[in-house]
Amino acid sequence: MLESNNLVTFEGITNSTAYHTFLLDEEKGRLLVGAKDHIFSFNLLNISKDNARIPWPASPTRKDECKWAGKDVPRECANFIKVLLPFNHTHVYVCGTGAFHPVCSYLEVGRKPEDGVFRLEPHVENGRGKSPYDPKLLTASMLIDGELYAGTSADFMGRDFAIFRTLGKHHPIRTEQHDSRWLNEPRFLGVHLIPENDNPEDDKIYLFFRENAMEGEHAGKATYARIGQLCKNDLGGHRSLVNKWTTFLKARLICSVPGSNGIDTHFDELQDVFLVSTKDPKSPIIYGVFTTSSNIFKGSAVCMYSMTDIRRAFLGPYAHRDGPSYQWVPFQGRVPYPRPGTCPSKTFGGFDTTKDLPDEVVTFARSHPAMFNPIYPINNRPIIVKTDVDYQFTQIVVDKVEAEDGLYDVMFIGTDMGTILKVVSIPRGSWHDLEEVLLEEMTVFREPVAIKAMELSTKQQQLYLGSDIGVSQMPLHRCEVYGKACAECCLA
Amino acid sequence: MLESNNLVTFEGITNSTAYHTFLLDEEKGRLLVGAKDHIFSFNLLNISKDNARIPWPASPTRKDECKWAGKDVPRECANFIKVLLPFNHTHVYVCGTGAFHPVCSYLEVGRKPEDGVFRLEPHVENGRGKSPYDPKLLTASMLIDGELYAGTSADFMGRDFAIFRTLGKHHPIRTEQHDSRWLNEPRFLGVHLIPENDNPEDDKIYLFFRENAMEGEHAGKATYARIGQLCKNDLGGHRSLVNKWTTFLKARLICSVPGSNGIDTHFDELQDVFLVSTKDPKSPIIYGVFTTSSNIFKGSAVCMYSMTDIRRAFLGPYAHRDGPSYQWVPFQGRVPYPRPGTCPSKTFGGFDTTKDLPDEVVTFARSHPAMFNPIYPINNRPIIVKTDVDYQFTQIVVDKVEAEDGLYDVMFIGTDMGTILKVVSIPRGSWHDLEEVLLEEMTVFREPVAIKAMELSTKQQQLYLGSDIGVSQMPLHRCEVYGKACAECCLA
Repeated sequence: MLESNNLVTFEGITNSTAYHTFLLDEEKGRLLVGAKDHIFSFNLLNISKDNARIPWPASPTRKDECKWAGKDVPRECANFIKVLLPFNHTHVYVCGTGAFHPVCSYLEVGRKPEDGVFRLEPHVENGRGKSPYDPKLLTASMLIDGELYAGTSADFMGRDFAIFRTLGKHHPIRTEQHDSRWLNEPRFLGVHLIPENDNPEDDKIYLFFRENAMEGEHAGKATYARIGQLCKNDLGGHRSLVNKWTTFLKARLICSVPGSNGIDTHFDELQDVFLVSTKDPKSPIIYGVFTTSSNIFKGSAVCMYSMTDIRRAFLGPYAHRDGPSYQWVPFQGRVPYPRPGTCPSKTFGGFDTTKDLPDEVVTFARSHPAMFNPIYPINNRPIIVKTDVDYQFTQIVVDKVEAEDGLYDVMFIGTDMGTILKVVSIPRGSWHDLEEVLLEEMTVFREPVAIKAMELSTKQQQLYLGSDIGVSQMPLHRCEVYGKACAECCLA
Repeated sequence: MLESNNLVTFEGITNSTAYHTFLLDEEKGRLLVGAKDHIFSFNLLNISKDNARIPWPASPTRKDECKWAGKDVPRECANFIKVLLPFNHTHVYVCGTGAFHPVCSYLEVGRKPEDGVFRLEPHVENGRGKSPYDPKLLTASMLIDGELYAGTSADFMGRDFAIFRTLGKHHPIRTEQHDSRWLNEPRFLGVHLIPENDNPEDDKIYLFFRENAMEGEHAGKATYARIGQLCKNDLGGHRSLVNKWTTFLKARLICSVPGSNGIDTHFDELQDVFLVSTKDPKSPIIYGVFTTSSNIFKGSAVCMYSMTDIRRAFLGPYAHRDGPSYQWVPFQGRVPYPRPGTCPSKTFGGFDTTKDLPDEVVTFARSHPAMFNPIYPINNRPIIVKTDVDYQFTQIVVDKVEAEDGLYDVMFIGTDMGTILKVVSIPRGSWHDLEEVLLEEMTVFREPVAIKAMELSTKQQQLYLGSDIGVSQMPLHRCEVYGKACAECCLA
């Protein structure tokens, strides 16, 4: 364990790796970290002191089966923790890959910090549709009202990707299977609940992912960044789309730099998403980190999106095509009522549950999961573009900082070379012309490993970072590093 | 005039610029250069000695009209020479922009070098369809059997782009007008006659250009590189396509680096083309210089194409779509006979001239100018890729050099920063794995100006280079620069 430059680092343990799944519990002052075969609990004040760990390896039988299936034993045939979500006041829901056989369980963490409880329930349940089988794949998950929403891969081969809702009192529900219009080799990166209005019946779940462009959407192969929406109270269809989402819609997120010749430079590989709350809980600002799809031209960008633009896309025309030899066009025909994507609620009236939806609505929803209009970033361009450097962005968190002249969004951007950029976007004259100012660039890990997890504690004013080789902790403001004179001023 | 590093430079004259149009006459030992308001004649042995020039400005009336039309006087309202082509043994055909009013004339150059004749005929003819109006635009032209083939812009506004055949005994002929499927804002870069077989009736003219992708061919705006074909003996249609080409076809030239994720990095902005002859006159190797379309990621590449692959694309399926909301698909229906694109000749029989073509052939040709299959480079990837440098490629010539271990193609690549790269592509084990070796990088012009013209004299073993600020001459091999010991070995 080393401490230098205000950085506290937990250098990992010999038989673990992949410190990628974080759960921040500010109330109890702990950071839970899921890694290979282990769950860790760190003290938020200082991760190098007072930490605990629970080994949770895959069973020898599962390991053997995984090995016989031709998988790499140390890299694949272990239990890589992929889900760590608060279940109730005393328990955390935890899932891992279980050597290509996903498993879930409950972690008891006690009611109060002083209880010091940290214990894994011995009962293990099937983790299919919750954790991926392959540790290289991702799960984006959220637990709310006892229900688990997870975008993940649900089979051994890594072909069946879906958005699931499991646990809770309802029958499990998922996206339509074997339909590349719904999902086309997606990689899920985030799930968030964002209220639509004051009526919780209209609450929507938004998923962020990247996937292959739909057939006919692009000449040649391409990756598109997406936002998907679901109604929290979706119970699936009655005759069609039974136990499938009836309110799923997706739209493309564009992050591109306009070209003087009319040809834009696209950053399509969405890597991470962070939501910054505003006074209006219905309208967080969405920060997305993107990289290029080319392996010749490597670059990264950060784009900001508004919920107004996102909602406008979902209320716009559906993408439609009459057959494989047609182009995708905005659907011009009559859209059935209630408009697919609308949640069953008193707000729009007429129906209590998605099971009551008219057949034509469900049929339409099934064949029109994508919106025609993409969502452009605020100001139609990235707020940060980074090219000609040997690293790419992987993660982002944003801290709201009050400076003398107003409120600033300070971005902490993790890279694939183990460094963190601290950047602030300052209006150059007007809010339509932002200037990025790099405040600091810090090396967090002793090796150039990718930063795969990032959590921000506003209470502790600390940043926590995960990689393959360990966990690091860093104060948000490191003014004292720059000497006492500077400490009074700085955003650094 | 400076001489250094074996470089001979003509530094231009004060009231001219744009030394962009070259005509090499190895027999008479002269290099003719068309520039702003002047035609120059240089001695191939040493361009700084014994050179002559003829001023050919636009008339004061044309200059005034050009100025009144709101054009920039020094940069646009002059006679920029765009065409310099051998007409017969004693005359050269020359055209210029004529202050946005194209003009052509004949330049008398004498029969033998010792005649020393260099005189412009006073008679001036209309240059529409031969030289562009706007000096920023290009003409790719070729004169054969008294007929001028020119790909250019044919109107004041720079909207009507076309491939013309003028002069000669036939009625002028051109591409279909106002049809973006035929040409979509093209920029013409080269024209070459390549025989199809031993029968001259089958001779084809190939044009190289870049243009906007056809509507529906690409998501968003994009540039595609193209090769177009025409029959030399095309006389146009009888009822339809009267005085229009009936044998015009185009295909996309792809120059891309395959990506490990299946997403290729494309270089689509074709800048220049050079044909290297082989033992078989029907099968030259085509070298193309490409740059990227992005203004964020700048890079250049060189791709090589074989005539076999090109002919296969033109004999493959036609690109077809049933309407604006359809995709472009390979045409699956019955192709009328004789297959559009075939030249009228005894080889394929049945018709003597394109005027005898059945109506359905002409109708099909009119609506199917593009081929569905693109043409991939030899080995499916560029032979040279250059990124992370502050210059882009503009021009290429290739010299065949006999080394001890065989014949090498030595490329001289001009850049937009006034430099020349001398590169050789050497097989690494097999011909499918080429290794580029940069032999030399030379600064040719004292300012970082783009190299806009390049000619290679194999007889003189010299390279001639044109830019906005002058003309330079450079020996192909500069072994002596590297000292006597090295001189015996080198490709340099």
